[in-house]
Amino acid sequence: MNNLLVAQSGGPTAAINATLVGVLQGARISGKVDKVYGAKNGIEGAIKGNLLDLSDLMKDTQALDTLTYTPSSALGSCRFKMKDWRVDEESYKKIIETFKKYDIKYFVYIGGNDSMDTVNKLSEYCSVNNYDYYIMGAPKTVDNDLNLTDHSPGFGSAAKYIATTIAELERDISVYDIPAVTIVEIMGRNAGWLTASSALARVNGGPGPDLIYLCEKDFDDDRFIEDIKKKQAVKPGLLVAVSEGIKYKDGSYVSDSMSSGAVDNFGHKYIAGAARALEQLVRNRIGCKVRAVELNLMQRAAAHIGSETDIIESTMLGQKAVNCALNGETGKMAAIKRVSNNPYRVEFISVPVSEVANHEKTVPLDWITPEGNDVTEEMMEYLRPLIIGETNVKYENGIPKHLRLY
Amino acid sequence: MNNLLVAQSGGPTAAINATLVGVLQGARISGKVDKVYGAKNGIEGAIKGNLLDLSDLMKDTQALDTLTYTPSSALGSCRFKMKDWRVDEESYKKIIETFKKYDIKYFVYIGGNDSMDTVNKLSEYCSVNNYDYYIMGAPKTVDNDLNLTDHSPGFGSAAKYIATTIAELERDISVYDIPAVTIVEIMGRNAGWLTASSALARVNGGPGPDLIYLCEKDFDDDRFIEDIKKKQAVKPGLLVAVSEGIKYKDGSYVSDSMSSGAVDNFGHKYIAGAARALEQLVRNRIGCKVRAVELNLMQRAAAHIGSETDIIESTMLGQKAVNCALNGETGKMAAIKRVSNNPYRVEFISVPVSEVANHEKTVPLDWITPEGNDVTEEMMEYLRPLIIGETNVKYENGIPKHLRLY
Repeated sequence: MNNLLVAQSGGPTAAINATLVGVLQGARISGKVDKVYGAKNGIEGAIKGNLLDLSDLMKDTQALDTLTYTPSSALGSCRFKMKDWRVDEESYKKIIETFKKYDIKYFVYIGGNDSMDTVNKLSEYCSVNNYDYYIMGAPKTVDNDLNLTDHSPGFGSAAKYIATTIAELERDISVYDIPAVTIVEIMGRNAGWLTASSALARVNGGPGPDLIYLCEKDFDDDRFIEDIKKKQAVKPGLLVAVSEGIKYKDGSYVSDSMSSGAVDNFGHKYIAGAARALEQLVRNRIGCKVRAVELNLMQRAAAHIGSETDIIESTMLGQKAVNCALNGETGKMAAIKRVSNNPYRVEFISVPVSEVANHEKTVPLDWITPEGNDVTEEMMEYLRPLIIGETNVKYENGIPKHLRLY
Repeated sequence: MNNLLVAQSGGPTAAINATLVGVLQGARISGKVDKVYGAKNGIEGAIKGNLLDLSDLMKDTQALDTLTYTPSSALGSCRFKMKDWRVDEESYKKIIETFKKYDIKYFVYIGGNDSMDTVNKLSEYCSVNNYDYYIMGAPKTVDNDLNLTDHSPGFGSAAKYIATTIAELERDISVYDIPAVTIVEIMGRNAGWLTASSALARVNGGPGPDLIYLCEKDFDDDRFIEDIKKKQAVKPGLLVAVSEGIKYKDGSYVSDSMSSGAVDNFGHKYIAGAARALEQLVRNRIGCKVRAVELNLMQRAAAHIGSETDIIESTMLGQKAVNCALNGETGKMAAIKRVSNNPYRVEFISVPVSEVANHEKTVPLDWITPEGNDVTEEMMEYLRPLIIGETNVKYENGIPKHLRLY
């Protein structure tokens, strides 16, 4: 038996199930895979032997269509970080046990930085021990911070949601003729790609955000207040987009004053609250009407306004990862190489996962304007194609249909 | 000349421009209106004589189509409350001046409670002074709290956004196998209709919110913590929907501890922060992972996921208001009367605006479950038809096309 295991990890996105569908399609089309299993809750499912048999789902094209447009990770997720196998072999042994028990030969892990670290370590472990398993990564992250891929699945859909929402908020805040500042906080701890995509609200001629601050540039309260005053002299109602991870020169987060001190399973500090901190700053220093808006989980879950480009690419990367594994590649990640902007053309390639794991691709500083409060035309050229196309979401009783695997 | 003036007021919605389109269509189809003017920033535009000539727009069907799906108030808005004309006649005189200057005979004011108060006072003023003007109101409010209409334009689209978002958030929070509470704050100061619509996330079989708290029922911290513990014993990840206006028995807002003390132009206190207050409560009393999410301005601006039922009804209410004015009605509001649920059928009627102004239609207490943490089947029957149908939003360059009037 040549069976394939697939799992999903990290924070959910609107496109990660499209990649799962691509894996299932790739396995089916190849004719070389007998059964496909899904590990529940990422690598933890492989360790615990907690698998779902997806072989029937693989042949159900209608269910796959619904799954494509279902947000979040249908197989669940985890935030489990594998230890070095030289230090602690236990979980590696358990994974190999699961592989043997279910005749798994191929494993595709869909995820972000931390998941690519797992792919890297596991493929290394297999190679050192001469195990004949083919381990491939398939990228996903709304943050778009994965190395060696032009962009990451999930990002385009989140960018489309953000651009649309910013355009709608711009309409909303423009109705009163009084000085007011609306500050929108967008995901991105160290990488400002999502915040940059707020500028796409301008693609049809609207003003979009009046000011944009990415986490790549040091934030300065005085400069921010000056920026606001300057813009407000021309236009009373302002819309400002900020990355959740904006930091001062000393490295402290703008959101620190709002922080609950809570940490996630990886020990990362929750850093939400930048917009609320700035709301207080504007209230104290300018005194006009001011409101903080957080796009929060909606920006990664809003599958109802997914980017068709993103969903198609996400699916094809799942297929690509399977094809690579079947062709004997291991320790690699399926990736996107951009061939041209106009017309937009990409190729699907595979890259060494060791160069992806634990790297973060941040926004090039020269894609931010010298004033540090907007993005350049180069950034716009990069972003524009990624939100093109509307998906074929099916509605039932007024809301989108979702597929649940458990 | 028989000219018509139209204006928009109050908080924007995803459907208020559809009503404006209905007014323009109604005026055109009637053949009895020479020119249509729009007052900028609501009644303030009528007072200041700040009008836009909409006569060309009236004939531009393509522009009207785009305007239908453009969120917020294309003519701007205001939060101006007219004083009693017996006390201060000044603004009334100015409005009459504007009417005379532009040969206005009909005036349609699209808005919520406060706007209907303006319609009421102005029509009364005209009648006492024997002025031959016909003043009609057309309803709008995401809050759905207007009296004498089965529901209000804008509510169905907001409800569709909320139901869809809650269904997507449910998928998002379900991926980890650890105890966690996500608390979603939904608009509604005194009326819980929007929060109730979170239950529509269940229409396709999904679980929707695990707990729902409307502002109509006294909130109790201890009972809330008990509810959470009980649910968490069965299911680790919980989704909770709360009205921004939930209050304790003593009348204080749950959000009070989070309040900045800021007030809006009507002197209403900003009450956002209920979910964040409860986030801290859960962190202190239960200690599990917890996150507050505010649907904020998005829930009233998300025209990209408008309800077709809502948009069509909103348009027809605009037409109805014009027809009533042309037929000599004044001091009335166009309204919706529900004829049946299944099949869903409505009639468009006119109601005395004096009985609409300054009333708030809250959720009947027997549409909330006895435990106070969910809604009943009666509520679901009321809500279900209102989110049916997807709108024909046109996308350009990846985001919805909007029309700007100034």
